[in-house]
Amino acid sequence: MKVAVFGTGMVGDAIGSKLIDLGHTVMMGSRTRDNEKAKNFVAKNGEKAKNGTFSEAAEFGDIIFNCTAGVASLEALRSGEEKNLAGKIIVDISNPLDFSKGMPPSLAVVNTNSLGEEIQKTFPQSKVVKTLNTMWCGIMVNPAMINGGDHNVFVCGNDTSAKEEVTNILTSFGWKDKNILDLGDITKARGTEMYLPLWLSIYGATSNGAFNIKLVS
Amino acid sequence: MKVAVFGTGMVGDAIGSKLIDLGHTVMMGSRTRDNEKAKNFVAKNGEKAKNGTFSEAAEFGDIIFNCTAGVASLEALRSGEEKNLAGKIIVDISNPLDFSKGMPPSLAVVNTNSLGEEIQKTFPQSKVVKTLNTMWCGIMVNPAMINGGDHNVFVCGNDTSAKEEVTNILTSFGWKDKNILDLGDITKARGTEMYLPLWLSIYGATSNGAFNIKLVS
Repeated sequence: MKVAVFGTGMVGDAIGSKLIDLGHTVMMGSRTRDNEKAKNFVAKNGEKAKNGTFSEAAEFGDIIFNCTAGVASLEALRSGEEKNLAGKIIVDISNPLDFSKGMPPSLAVVNTNSLGEEIQKTFPQSKVVKTLNTMWCGIMVNPAMINGGDHNVFVCGNDTSAKEEVTNILTSFGWKDKNILDLGDITKARGTEMYLPLWLSIYGATSNGAFNIKLVS
Repeated sequence: MKVAVFGTGMVGDAIGSKLIDLGHTVMMGSRTRDNEKAKNFVAKNGEKAKNGTFSEAAEFGDIIFNCTAGVASLEALRSGEEKNLAGKIIVDISNPLDFSKGMPPSLAVVNTNSLGEEIQKTFPQSKVVKTLNTMWCGIMVNPAMINGGDHNVFVCGNDTSAKEEVTNILTSFGWKDKNILDLGDITKARGTEMYLPLWLSIYGATSNGAFNIKLVS
């Protein structure tokens, strides 16, 4: 599969490298073609790794992973151009964390709206699936690193077949079917984004970001 | 111990009944002295159960459990009167769920503030400890009903000794020490309150409210 990864930070690197490990071809997109981190990603990952502008990556990819910082996501996706994104799945992993007023961050979109919804509204011809945004990126692509892989990831989005396709990718990352919970339509992104302040508090209290939640009943 | 329970709903009934089972004396407070649910609580729980106004209950209690609906909590506590609450622990179990615009509820206080903080600011002479607000009330008082009691509850508040006292009460409810996580000061109530939309989404997706989260790392 040809995949576009938007964002050159830790999350984009983790997702892009994992997808290449799994045999996919990945173009990492950023604002400029000579982004240093994107060039390092290519150097590290060999011939299946490419880099380009957001627009070039969006055109290249059959599917787009949004791994940009949440407050920059809409601008990045607009740079990807609607014509390149139309009809495609956008896997939104971002969180609208606003660090501009110091720590702890607040959420730039919250309560009666979410970044996932904003992306879906901005790109109505794309199929936005929100997932993986409730944990550290190391766990996203290697769930087995904690608790034998037995913990939960959420998906939500308006398009059922898009959610199935993303669920298959999650399975290829090592997520067990029983631990992938479909919360419903894209409005459910509110809940997974609003979980972030609790995530940050737990991280602060335990000094360990390599954790996740397991639903028990 | 003499305990005031504010609120006559399911949460107040569950907390009050459990405290009586544990040998405490409980006065359930409500707006009026002849509240039917409070009278039923007394009839069901025998001589260790009392009922009264918010003010009478606050005066009676050595400690106050706020189990009112979040959007009504400040008014209820004001009716309890500052002079009756001063120097005492207020265990805040409420969530600021606003159902006035339909389902799903939004949060009336959110993001850069929380109901726990508002209560602490309104009653600076009291010691607010936020806890138990992240689960269904049946689990609050009987954690062993799921997963052998192995799942998490959070506490936060500005006063360390107040958190210790509340932790002891949680232990008496059946919570294991290792599963009681102190998140820090009362600003951490933001995270536990903002978890509610995710809680509601999980409940909606699974049709089961008798669940909780277990931190795994």
